[in-house]
Amino acid sequence: MSSARLVGSGLAAACACVLLAVSVQTQSSPRAAWLEPYSETATRLIQAATADDFAWRRLAELTDTYGHRLSGSDNLQRAIAWAVETMRRDGLDNVRAEPVMVPKWVRGRESAEIVNPPLHSLAILGLGGSSATPPGGVEADVITVGSFDELRSRSADVKGRIVLLNAPFTTYSDTVTYRTNGARLASQLGAVATLVRGVGPTGLRTPHTGSVQYGMGVAPIPAASIAAEDADRIARLGAHGRVRIRLTMEARTEPDAESANVVGEIRGRERPDEIVLLGGHLDSWDVGTGASDDAVGCIVTWEAARLMSKLKIRPRRTVRIVLWTNEENGLRGATAYAAKHAAHAGDHVFALESDSGVFEPASLGFSGSAAARNLVREIGSLLSPLGLAEIVAGGGGADIGPIAQAGNAPMMAYLGNPGRYFAIHHTPADTVERISPQEVSKAAAAIAVMAYVVAEMPERLPK
Amino acid sequence: MSSARLVGSGLAAACACVLLAVSVQTQSSPRAAWLEPYSETATRLIQAATADDFAWRRLAELTDTYGHRLSGSDNLQRAIAWAVETMRRDGLDNVRAEPVMVPKWVRGRESAEIVNPPLHSLAILGLGGSSATPPGGVEADVITVGSFDELRSRSADVKGRIVLLNAPFTTYSDTVTYRTNGARLASQLGAVATLVRGVGPTGLRTPHTGSVQYGMGVAPIPAASIAAEDADRIARLGAHGRVRIRLTMEARTEPDAESANVVGEIRGRERPDEIVLLGGHLDSWDVGTGASDDAVGCIVTWEAARLMSKLKIRPRRTVRIVLWTNEENGLRGATAYAAKHAAHAGDHVFALESDSGVFEPASLGFSGSAAARNLVREIGSLLSPLGLAEIVAGGGGADIGPIAQAGNAPMMAYLGNPGRYFAIHHTPADTVERISPQEVSKAAAAIAVMAYVVAEMPERLPK
Repeated sequence: MSSARLVGSGLAAACACVLLAVSVQTQSSPRAAWLEPYSETATRLIQAATADDFAWRRLAELTDTYGHRLSGSDNLQRAIAWAVETMRRDGLDNVRAEPVMVPKWVRGRESAEIVNPPLHSLAILGLGGSSATPPGGVEADVITVGSFDELRSRSADVKGRIVLLNAPFTTYSDTVTYRTNGARLASQLGAVATLVRGVGPTGLRTPHTGSVQYGMGVAPIPAASIAAEDADRIARLGAHGRVRIRLTMEARTEPDAESANVVGEIRGRERPDEIVLLGGHLDSWDVGTGASDDAVGCIVTWEAARLMSKLKIRPRRTVRIVLWTNEENGLRGATAYAAKHAAHAGDHVFALESDSGVFEPASLGFSGSAAARNLVREIGSLLSPLGLAEIVAGGGGADIGPIAQAGNAPMMAYLGNPGRYFAIHHTPADTVERISPQEVSKAAAAIAVMAYVVAEMPERLPK
Repeated sequence: MSSARLVGSGLAAACACVLLAVSVQTQSSPRAAWLEPYSETATRLIQAATADDFAWRRLAELTDTYGHRLSGSDNLQRAIAWAVETMRRDGLDNVRAEPVMVPKWVRGRESAEIVNPPLHSLAILGLGGSSATPPGGVEADVITVGSFDELRSRSADVKGRIVLLNAPFTTYSDTVTYRTNGARLASQLGAVATLVRGVGPTGLRTPHTGSVQYGMGVAPIPAASIAAEDADRIARLGAHGRVRIRLTMEARTEPDAESANVVGEIRGRERPDEIVLLGGHLDSWDVGTGASDDAVGCIVTWEAARLMSKLKIRPRRTVRIVLWTNEENGLRGATAYAAKHAAHAGDHVFALESDSGVFEPASLGFSGSAAARNLVREIGSLLSPLGLAEIVAGGGGADIGPIAQAGNAPMMAYLGNPGRYFAIHHTPADTVERISPQEVSKAAAAIAVMAYVVAEMPERLPK
């Protein structure tokens, strides 16, 4: 589909004054002519989003009041109830909690110390899904390796040891594998526990939690993240002699617990069954307050719908907000949504997730057909007042993945500065202080405009 | 005393080749002529100090092997024994441990959580010297204040409450008073406990421990440092409603324990009873590894003597290194030294302490008479290769204070960048990773040259 065809259809629905605006502005602006009917509303959305710090204050309310929100926790249940109630108060349509059963992992007390040389506490965070140690802990000599290759090459030395996976942090995608998969390989080689260097830049003795996956048929061994400084220290000590560590973890997995995806809509005025899907995940790890991961993603996508409601903007299609549950340790929210809405997967015309923080400089990433990408890039020109006009390659998100894949829907991601995001990712320091009100407003504005145009334009975004 | 007189005396002790060098270099250099006899040795010291990372590796050995070193701890006792043994191996003279009895405060387990709204753990560190809570903790509503004035103005609301002293961090000297003195005032007004915003910039949920002083006749109440983010969160929640907190601390004070100042010397070749005193403190708080506070101060001052020993430099006066004990919570090392050496206080011609980190940009601070300052500034010209030529106002240190005051000795401080120092000061993140080998070598070189010239020049530095 060409943009010329879209322009034609768009104009048919627009009033005379907008038509005039188009004919004037196309002279001087690089913006595609078909976008002119959306320009005034886009401006109103941007102005409303950036007029105050409402979105940041709502983010603070969520994270201050409910704290971290691990799947199965009371905190998450309370946050879900608050979100449903607050969305209704915002005037969104069809607000509901769609029930999902989620895993319930409980950290319990945990500690680690170097016992030789004697006695030094280590900064650790057990990995989500980890097994426990025996009550008195597991104590063993440490073998420190910098990569899976090194671990395999030293496999004769692993049995009975605690493996420290001490790969330097480069990028998240390159190093998260040690956290996810390290315990599996270590267990297969006979290790009694694993410590994984924090997947993030060196902080302030800051471990980064996250999921461990043992895989089928592998004996679970306790697994914890360890602060970069502690990993370095063990490596230095180990270069001169034997280092012995005791790790104690009470972690346990309880029966699955009730949870829910929170859903609210701006019901479409002409094609209500066609869905523009936006969201972040409401669950978090059980440290910090999950502000950047991912309360802010919930707030900035929800804000797109709240602003439409407030400004009485009802686009042609339905804009649906989903605050996903259980992104962090199971993806049950995403799976349950895709199952429940499987018959309507093809009606999802676009799916956007914000789950990479809103740190400056931010960008929008897109995945879809070339035709869709061209259109989305043109829509991006409406975001130039926000400094977000360029749409980069690579959209998507863990939560929108299953339904978008089923429906072959184009996907977008709001992408915050990864350096600032991964400094606090899955750490106790993921709190609202690090997030600027301006960046929250900017993200909300950008997502609102993008969603509005995609929901409003006459023909659906091509697959 | 004029520098001309010093030049004359200095030259008398110098060899012909140095005299030649003087006559050549005074043509082109802004350096005071009297310093030329010291120039070659200064260059040797600088070259030796900066040739490798020996000092940093020794710093890592100390902090990796012995960890944090609170007064009364086994770690500190082991570090003292290691320092004595290692100084002897370095070839220093008169190496000994001068016994000192020190207070022994033990942290025990501690935790805090917001119980209304329910349940959120807080990042705290009990303050050294704090009393304990009852075993089940103390639970009370919070009153948040930003200053002592505000606390006094709201004194009617304090009784039975937990006081949060939430003064924003500006400088250490301006805000440390809340940590030291906050519990006293809060107790006098009837509070049941105090939380003090971390005295440092906002970190990564990083509380900063330190001493609390109750004062005579004041009922001790439990006192803890709280991370800036947690203080902000309580303040935000408190603006909308009641915030209730439970604080649990097992802190206890045990009987005084044996400790020691570690002393080693380069015995003076002509005036061995005149002392150039250098040092840092070997004790630390019981978090992190006390690398910047103050293992590095020990290492860089000790290194000055080690380099003299290695290069066979034996100045006219004695260069004495003292690795002080109990700087953090009692100053018993400083007091005991001043008492033991009281009869020789006047023989201390100069005292230097490094207890502000070695972070770039660093400087040397000086306190003493105008005549002494002028000479020291001239000596500073020898440090220009290190970028440390300028000597700023304000020397001294808590450990050298008592003896220097008794002997009216000029005092110097090695001063690291305070922004970087106070980011990790008294926190779990005070580790060797943050300290660059180059900065350690630079500090050692500067202190070695300064100590050498002050110990070598014919007449003692004027009081």
